[in-house]
Amino acid sequence: MSAQIISGTEIAARIREELTAKVTGLKRDHGLTPGLATVLVGDDPASHMYVGMKNKAAAKMGIHSRQITLAADTSQDELLGVVAGLNADPDIHGILVQFPLPDHLDEARVTEATSPDKDVDGLGPMNAGRLMTGSGEFFAPCTPAAVIEMLVRSGHDPAGRHVVVLGRSNLVGQPLANLLLRKAPGGNATVTVCHSRTPDLAAVARTAEILVVAIGRPEMITAAMVAPGAVVIDVGTHRVDDPASEKGYRVCGDVRFDEVKEVAAAISPSPGGVGPMTITMLLSNTVASAARSAGS
Amino acid sequence: MSAQIISGTEIAARIREELTAKVTGLKRDHGLTPGLATVLVGDDPASHMYVGMKNKAAAKMGIHSRQITLAADTSQDELLGVVAGLNADPDIHGILVQFPLPDHLDEARVTEATSPDKDVDGLGPMNAGRLMTGSGEFFAPCTPAAVIEMLVRSGHDPAGRHVVVLGRSNLVGQPLANLLLRKAPGGNATVTVCHSRTPDLAAVARTAEILVVAIGRPEMITAAMVAPGAVVIDVGTHRVDDPASEKGYRVCGDVRFDEVKEVAAAISPSPGGVGPMTITMLLSNTVASAARSAGS
Repeated sequence: MSAQIISGTEIAARIREELTAKVTGLKRDHGLTPGLATVLVGDDPASHMYVGMKNKAAAKMGIHSRQITLAADTSQDELLGVVAGLNADPDIHGILVQFPLPDHLDEARVTEATSPDKDVDGLGPMNAGRLMTGSGEFFAPCTPAAVIEMLVRSGHDPAGRHVVVLGRSNLVGQPLANLLLRKAPGGNATVTVCHSRTPDLAAVARTAEILVVAIGRPEMITAAMVAPGAVVIDVGTHRVDDPASEKGYRVCGDVRFDEVKEVAAAISPSPGGVGPMTITMLLSNTVASAARSAGS
Repeated sequence: MSAQIISGTEIAARIREELTAKVTGLKRDHGLTPGLATVLVGDDPASHMYVGMKNKAAAKMGIHSRQITLAADTSQDELLGVVAGLNADPDIHGILVQFPLPDHLDEARVTEATSPDKDVDGLGPMNAGRLMTGSGEFFAPCTPAAVIEMLVRSGHDPAGRHVVVLGRSNLVGQPLANLLLRKAPGGNATVTVCHSRTPDLAAVARTAEILVVAIGRPEMITAAMVAPGAVVIDVGTHRVDDPASEKGYRVCGDVRFDEVKEVAAAISPSPGGVGPMTITMLLSNTVASAARSAGS
């Protein structure tokens, strides 16, 4: 029997419908249009593509989006000035500065300079800290939030289950562990975090009822590393050479999808899994930010 | 063969000697005396005792300590005013507001109002966030930092080992997990966090090479829950009734010390374990804060 496919594309479409209804409600009840500002520095084609996707998705659900494109030689002070202006702008509820920035710019300083109330990527220290200290409202970082939404909406609530997270990055593995441990919906899991320094990664992975893979290596996870009946979420996205394909490459995840789907009870593909969900979580945070500012 | 005893009292004494030398160096080289302000609201005898212990330990190593005692009916605004004054005071490098506060005061607001550069308890969201996002300098929260110091200084570096943390609190379990996962000294562990909602806590505890118990229940951990040869750190401190004792009570931890020391390779007692280390970590953060302000 083949696994249930946890489609990020389908779940994202459902959430986007819900968000569109919320945006309509904010406009109707509060005369408020959620606003997202995207800031792009330089000419990196991938960054241009990502920002374009975010703005398009925002516009589609009625979010006002403003793209600010700055030259590659923009100074640190100029960029911080742009962020300060957006922090103060009442029409803007979410600010996204697209990374990576050119080498002469300090990403950590830009993240810290973004108002925590508009840091809809959830990457700044104040939002991370509120998540960890359990104090006050916060924006969850988009990729970990996407993983949890996918689990809950596909019928695999992590509460009371053993979740193994492969990868301990500050962007994914660690905040995901904190979210999974919260006394809150989507939380209450028992969580193990492994990484490249874990002596027997395969043995630990096989103890997972839910396995989240964010290890950053193409198709590293084989069927032998997954317990029969486990639920697998693949956070990785890679381009690998593929002479057989017309483009010369194909896109894959951290998991060998074809073989793992034969042992897992449920699995998210990549592409079509966490990727489309991540942008959706950004828009969800933007709508939540606007709702907060409307006091609703 | 009985276990190695990891004495918090002894390790704390060693660290306090090192800190005393650092304080002497700051005075000699920078004309700077580290300053710790403790703020106590109301008449809780336990709080008075804790603050007294902290001030005494600070004074003993040459730290200038200033105790501010406020009436139990102090208003939120008055208290925030005191904190703002200490934030601005160049003679003060660490601020400790002793919790619990009287019910009419908001602890989270007080923590957020404390300057991150003087939040030597490491409990504020900015320090927690910097720990999690890996951006910039931070003060590690004292109890988790104490656990790591005890492991490293007793010869049980967590790198590459499987650490099971029992307890997921925002003060201990979660920040400890983040510290253990860092690519930094005292980190690089594989970490599992369990809690009251974990279905078979004993089975998970038995998978630990290093078991850190912060579950908050007196003597809950039996020998049967510990793998032979494991290292056990007991974070709990409880007073339990004991008619056989002169005082009518005795102090114990979360671990049944007498039976677990027969299976463990090493174990910290309670009392005499994490407790004396926690105050030491507070003083260590205060000295580090002063050193930062001196640019050294």
